Amino acid sequence: MKAYLTKRYRFSASHRLNNDELSVEENRATYGKCNNPHGHGHNYALEVTVSGEVDPRTGMVCDLGGLDTAVQSAIIDRFGHENLNVLPEFSREVPTSENLARKIFEILKREHGAATLERVGLDETSLNSFEYAGGSEMRR
Amino acid sequence: MKAYLTKRYRFSASHRLNNDELSVEENRATYGKCNNPHGHGHNYALEVTVSGEVDPRTGMVCDLGGLDTAVQSAIIDRFGHENLNVLPEFSREVPTSENLARKIFEILKREHGAATLERVGLDETSLNSFEYAGGSEMRR
Amino acid sequence: MKAYLTKRYRFSASHRLNNDELSVEENRATYGKCNNPHGHGHNYALEVTVSGEVDPRTGMVCDLGGLDTAVQSAIIDRFGHENLNVLPEFSREVPTSENLARKIFEILKREHGAATLERVGLDETSLNSFEYAGGSEMRR
Amino acid sequence: MKAYLTKRYRFSASHRLNNDELSVEENRATYGKCNNPHGHGHNYALEVTVSGEVDPRTGMVCDLGGLDTAVQSAIIDRFGHENLNVLPEFSREVPTSENLARKIFEILKREHGAATLERVGLDETSLNSFEYAGGSEMRR
Amino acid sequence: MKAYLTKRYRFSASHRLNNDELSVEENRATYGKCNNPHGHGHNYALEVTVSGEVDPRTGMVCDLGGLDTAVQSAIIDRFGHENLNVLPEFSREVPTSENLARKIFEILKREHGAATLERVGLDETSLNSFEYAGGSEMRR
Amino acid sequence: MKAYLTKRYRFSASHRLNNDELSVEENRATYGKCNNPHGHGHNYALEVTVSGEVDPRTGMVCDLGGLDTAVQSAIIDRFGHENLNVLPEFSREVPTSENLARKIFEILKREHGAATLERVGLDETSLNSFEYAGGSEMRR
Repeated sequence: MKAYLTKRYRFSASHRLNNDELSVEENRATYGKCNNPHGHGHNYALEVTVSGEVDPRTGMVCDLGGLDTAVQSAIIDRFGHENLNVLPEFSREVPTSENLARKIFEILKREHGAATLERVGLDETSLNSFEYAGGSEMRR
Repeated sequence: MKAYLTKRYRFSASHRLNNDELSVEENRATYGKCNNPHGHGHNYALEVTVSGEVDPRTGMVCDLGGLDTAVQSAIIDRFGHENLNVLPEFSREVPTSENLARKIFEILKREHGAATLERVGLDETSLNSFEYAGGSEMRR
Repeated sequence: MKAYLTKRYRFSASHRLNNDELSVEENRATYGKCNNPHGHGHNYALEVTVSGEVDPRTGMVCDLGGLDTAVQSAIIDRFGHENLNVLPEFSREVPTSENLARKIFEILKREHGAATLERVGLDETSLNSFEYAGGSEMRR
Repeated sequence: MKAYLTKRYRFSASHRLNNDELSVEENRATYGKCNNPHGHGHNYALEVTVSGEVDPRTGMVCDLGGLDTAVQSAIIDRFGHENLNVLPEFSREVPTSENLARKIFEILKREHGAATLERVGLDETSLNSFEYAGGSEMRR
Repeated sequence: MKAYLTKRYRFSASHRLNNDELSVEENRATYGKCNNPHGHGHNYALEVTVSGEVDPRTGMVCDLGGLDTAVQSAIIDRFGHENLNVLPEFSREVPTSENLARKIFEILKREHGAATLERVGLDETSLNSFEYAGGSEMRR
Repeated sequence: MKAYLTKRYRFSASHRLNNDELSVEENRATYGKCNNPHGHGHNYALEVTVSGEVDPRTGMVCDLGGLDTAVQSAIIDRFGHENLNVLPEFSREVPTSENLARKIFEILKREHGAATLERVGLDETSLNSFEYAGGSEMRR
């Protein structure tokens, strides 16, 4: 009996969308207001979906407390209340939400072994959401 | 590296569920209060999900501003603040949310070429949602 | 010991903002897209706030079930799934949300005697809200 | 033309996570605060997703009123305002949200024949969600 | 320059509405399904509003971290994941949300001295809210 | 007949809480993680409440489109997608949400004459809200 779990978390961070290999004009054309030189910020809403067999003894897929601890230390403590552009994770990549969702997926894939990581969803605002599933097909 | 993007939009419209080929009694039995002769209305919440490879140079799947512009001109300007029943799109079909979601999917499929349209979600109210994925299987 | 209670309800209706005493141009200038001739609609979210002494025996301000029944029969059954323009309540007034909030306040004031009606809040959309408190001062 | 429908419902219940076959210490280690001896409770938010061909005559996948009636009588009347632990459905299983989602799926599968039941989603809180799709793969 | 701050918190608890001084029939008539013998539960959403002068040096009304700590230890640790009926706070009063809001107000009034406590708001569900302001007039 | 209107807007910005007149240690003690040297950001949710007599001819308190235009040009264009610390409005004050709410109130008070500005509400996150009413008493 396979079931799915989604946990939601929130963290605040700032970023500026800019690629040093592009010209000023190209950056402005590509990123619009998100290219503003001093940056801006978001309250990111993170969804982490895992799946697994329901343990018939406990009735649970995995220990949710363990997932919370992993997300807190591996994600929130790393990205929360930070400027994403100055972090080593984005020294060579633009901190778009696509890239941030992928980083989070890869980090959690390494750090949390108790259940299968299915997808990471990231709301940049209440109107813009991004999802990454390890590059595999995800129909939704 | 394939990622998914969902953008959310809102528009208000009115409709009346009624099929001229059915009798008054059949229409009332089929549509209940939604068959009220003077119509009623909704704040529709629209979700548009597209997917694509993340461009390694920009870190983005597609230009979100372009998607916004396409949805505004092709969908919101067409259906927003309108009575759906009098529009040409519903001259031969009942403006249920199933049909409205399909129309929106088909219009966006034609109008927005920059990324793969995966699905259209449409909340008629906070309690009723409809999804269309071009008729293909969509597990969720 | 005075306490306050707010209950939330939802109903869908359509309306057209138009005043017959104004010219076509004046109506268009005043109401913009809300003047579209075939009308449009909303999912209205209604908040009803009452206050009263907490009964030391029951620990309650009033019977919430009684309030629900009054709102259902006096408001939802009257305005839900309707075109507001054709109702007798709006035969002489434009069905703006200001006027709709006032009508609801006046109807509930008459119909529900068990606690003091403090205010009616009406969300036309998630971005537009209206409040009426019987015309008295309401700081918020 | 296949479409998907999701309806949302809410009910309040209490539960205590405890497995009589485990020791007091094991239960505490497994369930943490959810093992508190007197129980606690939740406002569960239930999502029911069905799919089907859109009937070209009605423009609908199924009669939503019929689905509402089935969920009300088969689920809300059964679990709402109850202590899950004392119900026969949980006489031999721990009332975790994984197990509750599965019970709801199985009950609705039996009770509602008009459209294909795709999944049941269950929010235990605004931060914890659970999904069950009959044990089949569900990518999301 | 006086400003207002509202912080939101969540906790889950169970309760049963029953007054031992009333007969079984009176309790059932007064509390309806909330009188179910085994209790039920809620995810309570708590709002705490304080006010004060904005300190020109810090730009803040009070230390929000201090308010969080006070609410966590005085309220969440006390009521979260508990059955309200067995707590000493409700040994002589029915754990309605009116009474729970008042208890929370009185506890915070004693425990948090850094800013003026204006009101406590308590959502029992997304449809039912309760507010207490120390018994003083609160227009809203 | 006096009524109240609240409009909601959203903008994203970054800030760092730091007062140059305080030592590094004092800033860290006062602002905690919000003092991080590279800043962080938020999706601010802004509520603007105005009041006025309902015009019997139009059924409206004021022209909502005019309010939207004023907020867009005076607030969103000024603060949206910006780093608040580098703006002239915060050259001498720390960009806390208390100070930001007050700035917004003062700007709108000057710019929008059509109805009485009652209050500005500002959600920094979904858990932290701030309100300013021109320094006058505001019970809520």
